[in-house]
Amino acid sequence: MAQISDAIRDGAEGFFRTQYGTISKMALLLAVVILSIYLFRSTTPQQESSGLGRTISAYITVAAFLLGALCSGIAGYIGMWVSVRANVRVSSAARRSAREALQVAVRAGGFSAMVVVGMAVIGIAILYASFYVWLGVDLPGSMKVTELPLLLVGYGFGASFVALFAQLGGGIYTKAADVGADLVGKVEQGIPEDDPRNPAVIADLVGDNVGDCAARGADLFESIAAEIISAMILGGTMAQRCKIEDPSGFILFPLVVHSFDLVVSSVGVLSIRGTRDSGAKGAVEDPMAVLQKGYSVTIVLAVITFGASTRWMLYTEQAPSAWLNFALCGLVGIITAYVFVWITKYYTDYKHEPVRTLALSSSTGHGTNIIAGVSLGLESTALPVLVISVSIISAFWLGHTSGLVDETGNPTGGLFGTAVATMGMLSTAAYILTMDMFGPIADNAGGIVEMSQQPESVREITDVLDAVGNTTKATTKGFAIGSAALASFLLFSAYMDEVATFAHEPFKQVDIAIPEVFIGGLLGSMLIFLFSAWACSAVGRTAQEVVTEVRRQFIERPGIMDYKEKPDYGRCVAIVASASLREMIKPGALAIVSPVAIGVLFRILGYYTGHPLLGAKVVASMLMFATVSGILMALFLNTAGGAWDNAKKYIETGALGGKGSESHKAAITGDTVGDPFKDTAGPSLHVLIKLLATITLVMAPVFL
Amino acid sequence: MAQISDAIRDGAEGFFRTQYGTISKMALLLAVVILSIYLFRSTTPQQESSGLGRTISAYITVAAFLLGALCSGIAGYIGMWVSVRANVRVSSAARRSAREALQVAVRAGGFSAMVVVGMAVIGIAILYASFYVWLGVDLPGSMKVTELPLLLVGYGFGASFVALFAQLGGGIYTKAADVGADLVGKVEQGIPEDDPRNPAVIADLVGDNVGDCAARGADLFESIAAEIISAMILGGTMAQRCKIEDPSGFILFPLVVHSFDLVVSSVGVLSIRGTRDSGAKGAVEDPMAVLQKGYSVTIVLAVITFGASTRWMLYTEQAPSAWLNFALCGLVGIITAYVFVWITKYYTDYKHEPVRTLALSSSTGHGTNIIAGVSLGLESTALPVLVISVSIISAFWLGHTSGLVDETGNPTGGLFGTAVATMGMLSTAAYILTMDMFGPIADNAGGIVEMSQQPESVREITDVLDAVGNTTKATTKGFAIGSAALASFLLFSAYMDEVATFAHEPFKQVDIAIPEVFIGGLLGSMLIFLFSAWACSAVGRTAQEVVTEVRRQFIERPGIMDYKEKPDYGRCVAIVASASLREMIKPGALAIVSPVAIGVLFRILGYYTGHPLLGAKVVASMLMFATVSGILMALFLNTAGGAWDNAKKYIETGALGGKGSESHKAAITGDTVGDPFKDTAGPSLHVLIKLLATITLVMAPVFL
Repeated sequence: MAQISDAIRDGAEGFFRTQYGTISKMALLLAVVILSIYLFRSTTPQQESSGLGRTISAYITVAAFLLGALCSGIAGYIGMWVSVRANVRVSSAARRSAREALQVAVRAGGFSAMVVVGMAVIGIAILYASFYVWLGVDLPGSMKVTELPLLLVGYGFGASFVALFAQLGGGIYTKAADVGADLVGKVEQGIPEDDPRNPAVIADLVGDNVGDCAARGADLFESIAAEIISAMILGGTMAQRCKIEDPSGFILFPLVVHSFDLVVSSVGVLSIRGTRDSGAKGAVEDPMAVLQKGYSVTIVLAVITFGASTRWMLYTEQAPSAWLNFALCGLVGIITAYVFVWITKYYTDYKHEPVRTLALSSSTGHGTNIIAGVSLGLESTALPVLVISVSIISAFWLGHTSGLVDETGNPTGGLFGTAVATMGMLSTAAYILTMDMFGPIADNAGGIVEMSQQPESVREITDVLDAVGNTTKATTKGFAIGSAALASFLLFSAYMDEVATFAHEPFKQVDIAIPEVFIGGLLGSMLIFLFSAWACSAVGRTAQEVVTEVRRQFIERPGIMDYKEKPDYGRCVAIVASASLREMIKPGALAIVSPVAIGVLFRILGYYTGHPLLGAKVVASMLMFATVSGILMALFLNTAGGAWDNAKKYIETGALGGKGSESHKAAITGDTVGDPFKDTAGPSLHVLIKLLATITLVMAPVFL
Repeated sequence: MAQISDAIRDGAEGFFRTQYGTISKMALLLAVVILSIYLFRSTTPQQESSGLGRTISAYITVAAFLLGALCSGIAGYIGMWVSVRANVRVSSAARRSAREALQVAVRAGGFSAMVVVGMAVIGIAILYASFYVWLGVDLPGSMKVTELPLLLVGYGFGASFVALFAQLGGGIYTKAADVGADLVGKVEQGIPEDDPRNPAVIADLVGDNVGDCAARGADLFESIAAEIISAMILGGTMAQRCKIEDPSGFILFPLVVHSFDLVVSSVGVLSIRGTRDSGAKGAVEDPMAVLQKGYSVTIVLAVITFGASTRWMLYTEQAPSAWLNFALCGLVGIITAYVFVWITKYYTDYKHEPVRTLALSSSTGHGTNIIAGVSLGLESTALPVLVISVSIISAFWLGHTSGLVDETGNPTGGLFGTAVATMGMLSTAAYILTMDMFGPIADNAGGIVEMSQQPESVREITDVLDAVGNTTKATTKGFAIGSAALASFLLFSAYMDEVATFAHEPFKQVDIAIPEVFIGGLLGSMLIFLFSAWACSAVGRTAQEVVTEVRRQFIERPGIMDYKEKPDYGRCVAIVASASLREMIKPGALAIVSPVAIGVLFRILGYYTGHPLLGAKVVASMLMFATVSGILMALFLNTAGGAWDNAKKYIETGALGGKGSESHKAAITGDTVGDPFKDTAGPSLHVLIKLLATITLVMAPVFL
């Protein structure tokens, strides 16, 4: 066990070093670009009056960007560090009892999750505090506290930037190894998953760590950072408009909510210990039920602490009952999170109708399985969209009627209401992330058990944990995309505000009957399609390299199948690592370059046709369409992938002919197709839609 | 041969009767709904001043709707009527020579195409003329000629309505039969395509007629009608704004362009006869080259006649050089059409890189084939979007600088410029449609040859024609989606104009930072995903019924495989027919009901929250997002489907192991998945995006 675990650890750490080496070089390059843009951009009158000149604001943005990138890297590293160490402990615990294995895996996942959420909160808090002190905020003649959050956008951009490449590189790695290993191992040679005879098996296990643990850590880190910053911006803007005397409550509210998240989620994670007694009768409890119980504990505590925080932070004498409305917004967010998790489960769990129908369609062949899976994925976008719609409208309405009005008496709390709902949704993020991190650890533990040829009973325990991990992974994605949808709506509003500030004129409307704006939308949606295409085909190409290598090893070393020869695991690890680093560049560059290119191009076109704001308008429309298409595409890819995976698992329980039947083969094809959908393209889209929002926020001055 | 042809004809005509029976019942129901809406809606001041009261305008709209529906039905019927009669003649001609077979097929396709385009032109001309005379247009006290085109929107809606159900029903029919026949016949039993032992083979051949001929006829009919009407509306609005003395040139221009289309396309079709001499040396010419030559002839003539028509119709003394700018807009459209056809060929023809890469990915299994196909389809959206973007911007700019200005001196020709570009794109529609209709006729002829067990040499000739038909079918779809993109942009502008007229206030901007408008966009894009899901799953479900039936027949009549027993073709035909009629209702109803429901819902919400135009705004954003997502989704589905089909054909030429190899099996899976993509969901989306535009135009009063 230790030997296998060491091999996984070496592979994962080696890849992490090279990957983050590449990422940090790109980040430094980008920092130079941002610096030069900010050194030559025009400053706003507010900034000038507060003494925040061009140079200072350039250095502030770059420093925030680099800190965001660094924190994201640390969050990713710790996720992976914990996971490569926890896996062998879980396998070892599985030899003793299921309960202990579950507890070790959950605790390990919980530790990473707390670090990720904590890093996001602490990083922003440190930045905010330093800027506050350094710039002498609220002193006469310097900037107002309500403008401070705008300086933090660089942090969000840094986090998105690293998350995108972490997710792309890790996602390509994990799925190329997985698909390659399955295609030759399971399909051609008929050996089980994670069999030690498969030369790609170590690469597959390494992939779980770099792809799922490190990348999802970076993804959620970035979600939380983006959400905190946009909520701070909106809170500040609203407080200023309503002339609230002490606006700091509205600005710091998101930090408080996420600090409470750490506490309540820790309680939720620790509550899982309690099952030791209840399970003492000897029966193996359903691990899913245990995790759900912990989630319920967390949610109840989150509702209570959220209500308390709104009363504490958002009470203002101007509108004495506003905090109550905002507390209800938070409740809307918490309910949305819960419903999202439920919908994802409905569409991806084989206890429900959709996956059963999908499994049934496998019995008529590979083709009908794929058609049914694609249809299922496309259909599964409907309910989440309806839920998001209802929650945005109701949160907006609750904020709107909160009683907060601006100078002219117009209600202004609507947008902040949706921000509070987003916080509510993310108020249990650490627990959700724990459940997510738990998945790959359990998966890895299963791999180690299988490879070290432990008794069947041990394998059974890790199999159960692995299956639960699959479901929690799918639900986390539903959660991540829901919060991304809400967060990007906030970021979009922040972008409109920022353009208005730079352009010295109101920027509230985008005339979508202008052909350029229509085209901006077309290009934005197209960007999502092209990015998904490149992410999927990167996996396909890398997997083909793995297939060729594994086939070669089986031919050149015929003794592998009889355990007489050892396969060359290292070569597969090296192939996947170098290929995924190469393949992550193209989609990543597309995401970074195209919004800037579109903005600059249409800015020039607008200059010659007499539309001064054309660049900013086209970017706004691009952002909006890319967000909407991105949400739908990510929902489609994640759900279809998860459903295919579980349809296969359902058949493996013995339904429709069970393992080895024709239905099973068709289901494996679906599972293979779903792999890059759900673990490469889908999660990368979560990051992409927020990256587009943060990059346009940072680059806004270039479009004007 | 005659026997098989009769069976096909009976099946096709039987299905057509039932299908159009259902459609006409729904159309009548909808007519009653429209009538009652219009009887209770508010009239515009212009209408009142011109004496066009509530009742008259209600009857006019309903009459136009019914006429549009009727003409669409006739166009579809004639397409099918010709095709079920031409197929046996082509098979018979193929026994003599390849050239003759090609000529018969092209002539038959050409006849249907001319009827379809002619019906669109004549129907609108008759309506326009009757309204003109009946309402006493341009007499003092009655309505102005520039307002007349708005009365025609009902015609476009009627055409879209019938086209949607024709395409859905026909598309589900043809692909369910095809997939079902292939899955059992080719994959399980290993018998060739169109083998007489396959019980589903007649259903498959019937499907080509009802799905490809009738449905594509209705689709293009609707495209042309929608494009003519929106161009007439925009021409009228512009002529009125610019106070052009005789606006009829601008209004009637689209009718003239399409009349010329009939002439130049006929010349193109007839020019194919010329090859009889050039091929006299005995060598079989490449039919694709022959068709391309005809297309070149058509394009050259189209450029000339288009230029002449702009000089004739669009010359105005206010801006003497405007006609030249518009002629260039037309050229932009013609070039766009050409480039679109080329791009589609690049992505779907196995002579080029993408399909070869796809074929190569089949060698590593079913899974990698599907991943590569999905990536290819998603990627193929990029170039068309760039081309559309360039052509919309350049046509708009050409129109904008045409010298036409309104009272205040603002240039106003931009939008009409894009309308002229759309006409340019569609100015060779009849020839394109000929090439498209040619496909299923050749396919059917091949089926008849195979089933009647003709010599190999005859089969070879029809095989070549069939392969060419596949390419032309794919390119027509590229053309159809390109023109749909342009047309829906026009229809969108017409919608904005109409809302402004009803609301008595300018309606040029949609504030996309309002949460409801963002949600409208989310719902619009989601509608596209859900519709595609339901269209694909309808095929999947119906195909499973066919599979079960065919398997049953093979088991219960073991003599079928040795030609000792005759399969029960009729039962398969009946199953597919009733299933596809049942399955077309759900997606069709979604398309009709949801825009109206969204508009009414948000109108009510707006009423209670004090936003009078909220319903219209949300519908505008829904329409815009649905259009953009629809274009991308249709491009993805069509191209992926076409590429899979041809990757399979490429392997069948002997590459990568050829027929029967593992690569071939993987490629068949891809082909099966692509079937509902490219022939059901994709083409239905073309219709859907225009239907959404026409339905919102007709229903606009309900949203206010």
